[in-house]
Amino acid sequence: MADSAHKVVRVFHEDHGFGPSHDELHGRGLQESVPPEYSEKIISYFFKKGFLRDVPLLPDCQEVVKKLYDKHEVFIVSAATEMPYSLEDKFFWLEEHFPFIPYQRIVFCGDKRIINADILIDDRARNFEFFMGRPLLFTAHHNIHENRFERVNSWKEVEKLLL
Amino acid sequence: MADSAHKVVRVFHEDHGFGPSHDELHGRGLQESVPPEYSEKIISYFFKKGFLRDVPLLPDCQEVVKKLYDKHEVFIVSAATEMPYSLEDKFFWLEEHFPFIPYQRIVFCGDKRIINADILIDDRARNFEFFMGRPLLFTAHHNIHENRFERVNSWKEVEKLLL
Repeated sequence: MADSAHKVVRVFHEDHGFGPSHDELHGRGLQESVPPEYSEKIISYFFKKGFLRDVPLLPDCQEVVKKLYDKHEVFIVSAATEMPYSLEDKFFWLEEHFPFIPYQRIVFCGDKRIINADILIDDRARNFEFFMGRPLLFTAHHNIHENRFERVNSWKEVEKLLL
Repeated sequence: MADSAHKVVRVFHEDHGFGPSHDELHGRGLQESVPPEYSEKIISYFFKKGFLRDVPLLPDCQEVVKKLYDKHEVFIVSAATEMPYSLEDKFFWLEEHFPFIPYQRIVFCGDKRIINADILIDDRARNFEFFMGRPLLFTAHHNIHENRFERVNSWKEVEKLLL
């Protein structure tokens, strides 16, 4: 839903005068897209309070999630407890951009194996490891070479598939 | 795990010079334990940042949860998204009192129907409504008259039952 990598790359560039290019991100995580001595630094943004409060939305996300919400029982499940200072940021980001989603449908966790759902749309293949339902891998720079799961490349594709 | 009602009652007394007695809490929620004009006020503490950061532990909770953790796959699932400012407080409270529980085992949600577990220990009967596993109702002042579920009265009883 959120394009947090976009903000990380932008701010990293501002702070260091260089940063990962589009090609360097292709097929790589953020940590592998910079010289090893910067790999901790580029990840550290996620742990800073306020950083995730204003990340951009992925294209068409708002309208497709609204349509999904109107037809299905949608929960937003975010891996957030690894970064405790992201909890408020993520909550208020969701409240701002998805005001139709009530707090009852928001879940912050660390390990998604506890989640009971029919379909899980996620950009992290590791979140499908113990998932019993249908996994949909949402394409992101870091999962390009993952080929074990059904893939969606955009929210428009999610719309076509599930609506 | 946390006796948040204990702090609410103490602080309400400090703020108003009166508050619910032990007998007035018996079988009632906090809101019903005070005159109607105070029912919103007594609940409002839960929404204040910092309030839940230093609530007391229930007796024997730490040691029994440690034993459960060592033998079972324990997740801490807290209804917290209704009170977004409680998220950090709850996380750091858990980190302080249960340092052996990693972030992967912590879940903050609004509606526990999304949780996939074999056993759910909870003091809110409404959290069992859609739960497919074994519910264990942990006795609290507000659920004394609930009789639909298997009940545990203390962490020592949880220990006897599950260990």
